[in-house]
Amino acid sequence: MEGAPLAISLGDPAGVGPELIAAAWAARDAAELLPFVVVGGAHVLRAAALTRGLSVPVREVFHPQEALDCFAHALPVLAGADGDYTPGKPSREGAALALASLEEAARLATIGEAEALITAPINKARLAEVGFAHPGQTEFVAEACSYAPGDAVMMLAGPHLRAVPLTVHIALAQVPGQLTAPMIERKARIVAMALARDFGIESPRIAIAGLNPHAGEEGRMGDEETRIIAPAIAHLQAEGLAVSGPHPADALFTARARETYDVALCMYHDQALIPLKALDFDQGVNVTLGLPVIRTSPDHGTAFAIAGTGQADPGAMIAAIRMAGECAMRRHGLYDD
Amino acid sequence: MEGAPLAISLGDPAGVGPELIAAAWAARDAAELLPFVVVGGAHVLRAAALTRGLSVPVREVFHPQEALDCFAHALPVLAGADGDYTPGKPSREGAALALASLEEAARLATIGEAEALITAPINKARLAEVGFAHPGQTEFVAEACSYAPGDAVMMLAGPHLRAVPLTVHIALAQVPGQLTAPMIERKARIVAMALARDFGIESPRIAIAGLNPHAGEEGRMGDEETRIIAPAIAHLQAEGLAVSGPHPADALFTARARETYDVALCMYHDQALIPLKALDFDQGVNVTLGLPVIRTSPDHGTAFAIAGTGQADPGAMIAAIRMAGECAMRRHGLYDD
Repeated sequence: MEGAPLAISLGDPAGVGPELIAAAWAARDAAELLPFVVVGGAHVLRAAALTRGLSVPVREVFHPQEALDCFAHALPVLAGADGDYTPGKPSREGAALALASLEEAARLATIGEAEALITAPINKARLAEVGFAHPGQTEFVAEACSYAPGDAVMMLAGPHLRAVPLTVHIALAQVPGQLTAPMIERKARIVAMALARDFGIESPRIAIAGLNPHAGEEGRMGDEETRIIAPAIAHLQAEGLAVSGPHPADALFTARARETYDVALCMYHDQALIPLKALDFDQGVNVTLGLPVIRTSPDHGTAFAIAGTGQADPGAMIAAIRMAGECAMRRHGLYDD
Repeated sequence: MEGAPLAISLGDPAGVGPELIAAAWAARDAAELLPFVVVGGAHVLRAAALTRGLSVPVREVFHPQEALDCFAHALPVLAGADGDYTPGKPSREGAALALASLEEAARLATIGEAEALITAPINKARLAEVGFAHPGQTEFVAEACSYAPGDAVMMLAGPHLRAVPLTVHIALAQVPGQLTAPMIERKARIVAMALARDFGIESPRIAIAGLNPHAGEEGRMGDEETRIIAPAIAHLQAEGLAVSGPHPADALFTARARETYDVALCMYHDQALIPLKALDFDQGVNVTLGLPVIRTSPDHGTAFAIAGTGQADPGAMIAAIRMAGECAMRRHGLYDD
């Protein structure tokens, strides 16, 4: 694939993002990563690489295309915004740098100058202080694509599990009121289409979890299953989708159960994130489904507390870059499943 | 320890209980199980053992004490209630047999004729049809001990995790309303005492989960953490208990996080059961804490669908019997931690 490199946003320069990008570049051959370009932060990346004892030659480029030529022997960074490297000490300047990098990386992906977007971790509260008005990077990317936030579906993917939380950053008490059959159906359709297009799973098996213990035991402990989830599943099945459920959530993530589906649709944040992190911590990738732009992200935060100490594991960053590349190749028909 | 055997209730004779008891007896030496006696169902056990190709000589005994002598060469079964073995075909007669066995096994444990009680799986709806008026076996055992249901705390324990769901079989929408600081404190104290007495963990490290995503992010997504859970933790810490939290639930079950505590206190059923079954399926033991009687149970149901097919894994049953024996020995001061 010779179209364009992948684009990576720098993330908060005080977090683990820059050092993990450098570590991913250092692992590019073993991990079979497609060429990528980091959007801004050349100085930050040089300094971050040093804290891990990595010899990473950083090459400033002026157009993403140049990254394709130098990627084999240097980490390509798009010239532009930059700043100090102060690991563990987040600042307003750092947040502004993270935001500038994210905006430009997303722009490159939407206009096709980058094949996909990988976002390094930001701190939402700090980015909000410099004008970031979105609940998270997923919604930001949706808007960059001129899509409604609800059209972007977050999927967490690790070696053992793919899981989609249908509701995300709301209080648990608000979850039951947010669930509707049309919402579940709409997101399930987006998931089915995206798994076919970007993951090569032609007719994905979608397991839908219940909300209540034991999936409500036929209404004895909550009626969301009978009133909302089961009707949504019936509609989706009638459309020909390979959907099953509502499954008791506690039985859905055993090794045996996981063999029976390609993705689990979960009713709330922790129903998806608990099993994913229990099984695949340090490997989880956050993928945005349903948008014209391919976007992945390591499923961890800025980890300010360990930034610059060399303790952060680059596994999820490497997995995110790798997955973005695989999705891009599938869209180009270049991936042999 | 020569006091008394462990007592095992038969469970629903149409479920996997009887065959797993037979399989556990067959594995008694390798698993280092203390002598146990099954309460009733000699015919059922003989037939169930045959479906797994096990050569299990069943010996009817008339007093639990006799089990100690014959356990090495035969599976001791207390003479009494019995019935047909019809795996996968639950019946009213079978439910009545399960209930009779449970009642007698609990009685033996409360009067000290058995060192501990292990309950094989029942089907609650079917037992309710023959007069069982408790939400579950945990509450039944509490009442058999003349304790209030709230004094019995359910803990799930597997090789990778111990977890206590503070609320259990209620709709998710009702969970926030059930959480109070006194309830959390009371159950945490019971857990701390039981882990010291029965599990040999002198000052157990108790990690308490939040209710909301990211433990609420300081009130941004739900206020149960700041209003209820954190004050409970402060009280418990002031009493000298090694309690931490409220922890974001999705980060609490990673391999690294699990090293930092002895037991996780969870706000709702699936918060505890999802990670336990994802990590320890076929090994999970349900332990009742806080009662004068030691009671364990395999953390799975009757599995009518696979009863008699030889597919059911005896791991959890064996682990439940083993754990009951270890707890009994600790109470007798005979266990060398």
